[in-house]
Amino acid sequence: MRSTIYGPDHDLLRKTTRDFLQREAIPRVPQWEKARLVDPEFYRKAGEIGLLGLQIPEEYGGGGQHSFTYNMTVAEEMINAHLQMSPMRVHTDVVLPYFLSYCDPSQAARWLPALASGAKMSAIAMSEPGTGSDLSGMSTTATRHGDHYVLNGAKTFISGGINASLIVVVARTSQEEDRRGGLTLLVVESDMPGYSTGRNLEKIGMKYADTAELSFVDVHVPVENRLGEEGAAFQYLTSNLAQERLSVALGAVAMARSAIEVTVQYVKDRKVFGKSLSSFQNSKFQLAAASAEVTAADCMLQHAVQELDAGCLSGDDAARVKLFCSEMQGRTIDSCLQLFGGYGYMAEYPIARMYTDARISRIYGGSSEIMKTIIAKSLGL
Amino acid sequence: MRSTIYGPDHDLLRKTTRDFLQREAIPRVPQWEKARLVDPEFYRKAGEIGLLGLQIPEEYGGGGQHSFTYNMTVAEEMINAHLQMSPMRVHTDVVLPYFLSYCDPSQAARWLPALASGAKMSAIAMSEPGTGSDLSGMSTTATRHGDHYVLNGAKTFISGGINASLIVVVARTSQEEDRRGGLTLLVVESDMPGYSTGRNLEKIGMKYADTAELSFVDVHVPVENRLGEEGAAFQYLTSNLAQERLSVALGAVAMARSAIEVTVQYVKDRKVFGKSLSSFQNSKFQLAAASAEVTAADCMLQHAVQELDAGCLSGDDAARVKLFCSEMQGRTIDSCLQLFGGYGYMAEYPIARMYTDARISRIYGGSSEIMKTIIAKSLGL
Amino acid sequence: MRSTIYGPDHDLLRKTTRDFLQREAIPRVPQWEKARLVDPEFYRKAGEIGLLGLQIPEEYGGGGQHSFTYNMTVAEEMINAHLQMSPMRVHTDVVLPYFLSYCDPSQAARWLPALASGAKMSAIAMSEPGTGSDLSGMSTTATRHGDHYVLNGAKTFISGGINASLIVVVARTSQEEDRRGGLTLLVVESDMPGYSTGRNLEKIGMKYADTAELSFVDVHVPVENRLGEEGAAFQYLTSNLAQERLSVALGAVAMARSAIEVTVQYVKDRKVFGKSLSSFQNSKFQLAAASAEVTAADCMLQHAVQELDAGCLSGDDAARVKLFCSEMQGRTIDSCLQLFGGYGYMAEYPIARMYTDARISRIYGGSSEIMKTIIAKSLGL
Amino acid sequence: MRSTIYGPDHDLLRKTTRDFLQREAIPRVPQWEKARLVDPEFYRKAGEIGLLGLQIPEEYGGGGQHSFTYNMTVAEEMINAHLQMSPMRVHTDVVLPYFLSYCDPSQAARWLPALASGAKMSAIAMSEPGTGSDLSGMSTTATRHGDHYVLNGAKTFISGGINASLIVVVARTSQEEDRRGGLTLLVVESDMPGYSTGRNLEKIGMKYADTAELSFVDVHVPVENRLGEEGAAFQYLTSNLAQERLSVALGAVAMARSAIEVTVQYVKDRKVFGKSLSSFQNSKFQLAAASAEVTAADCMLQHAVQELDAGCLSGDDAARVKLFCSEMQGRTIDSCLQLFGGYGYMAEYPIARMYTDARISRIYGGSSEIMKTIIAKSLGL
Repeated sequence: MRSTIYGPDHDLLRKTTRDFLQREAIPRVPQWEKARLVDPEFYRKAGEIGLLGLQIPEEYGGGGQHSFTYNMTVAEEMINAHLQMSPMRVHTDVVLPYFLSYCDPSQAARWLPALASGAKMSAIAMSEPGTGSDLSGMSTTATRHGDHYVLNGAKTFISGGINASLIVVVARTSQEEDRRGGLTLLVVESDMPGYSTGRNLEKIGMKYADTAELSFVDVHVPVENRLGEEGAAFQYLTSNLAQERLSVALGAVAMARSAIEVTVQYVKDRKVFGKSLSSFQNSKFQLAAASAEVTAADCMLQHAVQELDAGCLSGDDAARVKLFCSEMQGRTIDSCLQLFGGYGYMAEYPIARMYTDARISRIYGGSSEIMKTIIAKSLGL
Repeated sequence: MRSTIYGPDHDLLRKTTRDFLQREAIPRVPQWEKARLVDPEFYRKAGEIGLLGLQIPEEYGGGGQHSFTYNMTVAEEMINAHLQMSPMRVHTDVVLPYFLSYCDPSQAARWLPALASGAKMSAIAMSEPGTGSDLSGMSTTATRHGDHYVLNGAKTFISGGINASLIVVVARTSQEEDRRGGLTLLVVESDMPGYSTGRNLEKIGMKYADTAELSFVDVHVPVENRLGEEGAAFQYLTSNLAQERLSVALGAVAMARSAIEVTVQYVKDRKVFGKSLSSFQNSKFQLAAASAEVTAADCMLQHAVQELDAGCLSGDDAARVKLFCSEMQGRTIDSCLQLFGGYGYMAEYPIARMYTDARISRIYGGSSEIMKTIIAKSLGL
Repeated sequence: MRSTIYGPDHDLLRKTTRDFLQREAIPRVPQWEKARLVDPEFYRKAGEIGLLGLQIPEEYGGGGQHSFTYNMTVAEEMINAHLQMSPMRVHTDVVLPYFLSYCDPSQAARWLPALASGAKMSAIAMSEPGTGSDLSGMSTTATRHGDHYVLNGAKTFISGGINASLIVVVARTSQEEDRRGGLTLLVVESDMPGYSTGRNLEKIGMKYADTAELSFVDVHVPVENRLGEEGAAFQYLTSNLAQERLSVALGAVAMARSAIEVTVQYVKDRKVFGKSLSSFQNSKFQLAAASAEVTAADCMLQHAVQELDAGCLSGDDAARVKLFCSEMQGRTIDSCLQLFGGYGYMAEYPIARMYTDARISRIYGGSSEIMKTIIAKSLGL
Repeated sequence: MRSTIYGPDHDLLRKTTRDFLQREAIPRVPQWEKARLVDPEFYRKAGEIGLLGLQIPEEYGGGGQHSFTYNMTVAEEMINAHLQMSPMRVHTDVVLPYFLSYCDPSQAARWLPALASGAKMSAIAMSEPGTGSDLSGMSTTATRHGDHYVLNGAKTFISGGINASLIVVVARTSQEEDRRGGLTLLVVESDMPGYSTGRNLEKIGMKYADTAELSFVDVHVPVENRLGEEGAAFQYLTSNLAQERLSVALGAVAMARSAIEVTVQYVKDRKVFGKSLSSFQNSKFQLAAASAEVTAADCMLQHAVQELDAGCLSGDDAARVKLFCSEMQGRTIDSCLQLFGGYGYMAEYPIARMYTDARISRIYGGSSEIMKTIIAKSLGL
């Protein structure tokens, strides 16, 4: 069905992005994978042509776009090029909103231009070894001493953590009875003494995406690096989750759509038992069922993005979108891979990478179990 | 998420419909089930308050609404009241469009007022014993003799066939090489000699919906009763399928939503092992997953209805909507029923009836297999 | 694969049963369905040829077979004849073991001959309105007064309750801290004052199986009618569950196998678009996948029956068998029905009845949720 | 349930294997993964303690065991140690049977001792670029010239191809109308001129298993290296498929069982929201459902192995076992991984490797689609 959210501006951005990726990303993927890290130079080039700061006000060097649909366009093109690029998408879709919502003017002036240009990449440090998505169990602490906090703790699963220069850290600044209180957002700069990156975790997919352990040992974080109010992190985090979840969902939809495209092409080209693989009813039915599911997911996503842009997307609806789209992605890519037979298991085939890349969608940005918990609560259960 | 298709007019219609069903339908369901037939009096009352002719022009006694969203509103309320009412919905959603599109002015004047008032109910006779959805295999014939056709054949699975006064029959008027050619629509009136209804088929659900076998033995159908051009039926049928498919899809979505509602209520009320059934994580997760799926289906449906109203809904997109929504309905209702335990198997519980009613959605209006075939073709497979 | 559990004796019993059902059951099904009750005469005839007392010692008029495989043979033949016959199977598979294990010699002499001959049919009354499978929440009470108990309470979902002459009732005889203690089995005879049957519950399937509400108002039950020790019911019930669960599982496997058989035949006979339905790859793949699942279930069941006969089947393994076989049955029959198209929804087709009959398998004899709870416990969770 | 196929001999073999793997394999996995190849030294050590030639007659240095259950025991231990070791299992389970069935005495004397000792590892070369499992489309040719064949062609997806010294090649020796005729098995020795290995294909899992492209350019293969009759390969291949399929199936069952074990342990150890992850009903239910499925698969497999040992396992039953077990493996491991949350995506966790290793089970040894085709044929479809 016709899209309801894209116009000519998006088409232009789409083309720019596609050309840029073709030129600057695709030839470099093998070396990034070897290094298990995207070359920071790439981010600076992406910043140069405006892909990093789409939602940053123009006065700070950004694109000044309120709508999330521009982020979506860029993300779709990355995924169409079989590039998950999650650290970059975490930067634009997940971390930037915190800066945009909670920076005071002076912080905005200090940080936004570098975030827009890619001179400084960002990450957000929530998960800790042993707590996962459970904010209330967080044990990283920040103790106020005069004009600074002393930060101690360890974080893990930090997307983009190796490359990040500005890390938004969630830390406990006071002990409250309600364990969701007393949490604060601090911006750690990567050159602060006591900050260090640990292992770049080896994953089953998204090989060039850095996913880091971070360590904070007596890091002195000036009060000027606090984002928003002390103790307000839980509220901030939950109010920004909707966009994060749509970011995962749109990646899921784009990848599932791309999987169908490459599979349709494959079954048309491939001959088995003297006939085109596309002539087998099983190929047709598998792809048709997948196509119907992707269309449902896409309609849901488009509707949700319009609600997000209008400031009306509830947390539970964002959870529905994230849950459905990521589960749909899993099913779709699994059944597409199957149609490739042995080739589907070979790393050189995009479908094989999609398979390993996709598995994280049902986990990160809030696992399917967390999504179900949120939705159930909204049903009064 | 907020609906994008309903306004105050729909709210009003919704309320009218709800009150009407409460008063005129619900108390009569037991006797309808016993008779395996809705009392025609009910249809006349529905016609009186305008529920049957929403899309019929005002000059013929209808509501003059182009948009399918009004039909949707009425259907949703029926299903919220646990009434599938498929013969009535076949009348409004499936058969009326043929009359509206292909009646010449004289036919319109003869038939539309009675179709709007419920004085004459309609049905459409396509399936034949042994052919199912395969129009090209049709063997009912209509041979032209001067100013009339002589119609011979048998039809089956005709929803509303017992109660119908005007039956749109698909018949072969000539033998063409392309078996989809040579088919014509004729309006048979139930008092024509040679027309008779056969068995009212016993189904596993939708007990009060009549589903008939029809027989045509030398029925003389005047040429004035031909809808549209001779030989054009195949094209007419395919161009009207989108609305038929959305009709099934919206019923599926409405029923799935209703199933979740009654199940949420049940698990809140029900105690097991001394705790509310709603406090078990399995209850929460099953309902949350179902809720996400219904939301996806609903977004897809709303998008599709807007496309339909705009005259832009392709046959393959209608097939995607029908496929996804009906499959989702099956999964949802099955998992809701399970949460009722033994009560879910007792006919007096709405969820039990939904279970048996729902099974037909994946079959009628084009089975899931037909939908997949259509979608696959659109993918170039 | 070759069966490992059947020999020539079973073949003989199979043939006897098949002929008997052909003669005595199949012609009477329509009248039983109308009455929503099997004619007790049928049970007496079944008793006459030895089908009811297979496991009852020969001295009491039974077949003296220890092995459950004979019950299985009879059950398979009933299901092959599309007869679920659950009250009869409850009698032989579920209730008889209590009599066989806990009757003292005088009780054995009083009851076993009539249970073997079908002069008295039995039922077991556990579920209460509002408690389901949760024994500990049971509120039916039996208060000892000298040589009798005074029994008060209400039971529901009692399979065979209308026809039963001997009802094994689970009642609370004392209040214990551990709510699973203090429960006792009493045999109520249907002519005892204060005992009455309530509604014969209308179900979505198994139309001729009576499923009753039972009421006990000051029923005087002599102490001689107590089965086993006072307060030991919980232990008795759990130790007899394995056979009950296998009984449901074997019904599930037999019905799924039968569904595949009738569907294979149907797709061979049926023509669509000028080709046999069996020539479509989708028909082949659906049936092949179902066939693999049924084979897995069958192997599991055969292994379990051997363990049961050897007295080694654990409760959690019985739960695995019941869970897997009943879930498999649901999937199989749903996908078989789909291949019938519209005919699959017509009550006259066996597949349609299987669909409605099968839905209870995942619920009765312990729901899938209860099975999972038991299995999880055995995993240390 | 108790195993029906293992005795004390198997226990002993199990222990030997476990100790051996602990000592000789596990410490070397990282270097094998880096090399994408198992060190041939490992195979020689495995041969030394008798793991490679279990089914080879004692006179040729083997274990002289007819029963496949010994292979199973070794394979289970490898998989319990999270080692898929497919090239070794291809050697023992898939290729050896061809040598054992079709070697003449002189060939047996030449090859069997080296195959038993691991001095020479074997592989089988069937798939070609562009044909997959479709033997009839094979284009590798072997033209007879006097006392040798001249072999030309290319093969791909050859498990163990890099390490293999003896490669059983399927080649076309004559053009027959029935394309399954005219195929012959030739044993290529890796030092024959014109034979070369191509790429060691990079896969998404089983990183240390070599999977090679092989090239044959005018390779002179002496007639003494022909296995069996000329033109009989198709029949040989199909008659040996049952054991190959059970080999995949047993790997699937063993891995699924292992996945449940590590996950049960993980959910017991892991705390979320202040509670053990094992205390959540979702964790319990997911693992319980998986446990029931693995048990079904295991019963099916045990039954099938007994039939195989008895020479009675039909090709379609082997297909049922392979289909069900590999599909079950996919579902089980996917749901286990999910319970690990983010850790499930980290390559250092065994569950993550199982996920990528497992995906091939539904493809190699005959894909699920091929299995369904075989089963459907046996149903007369």
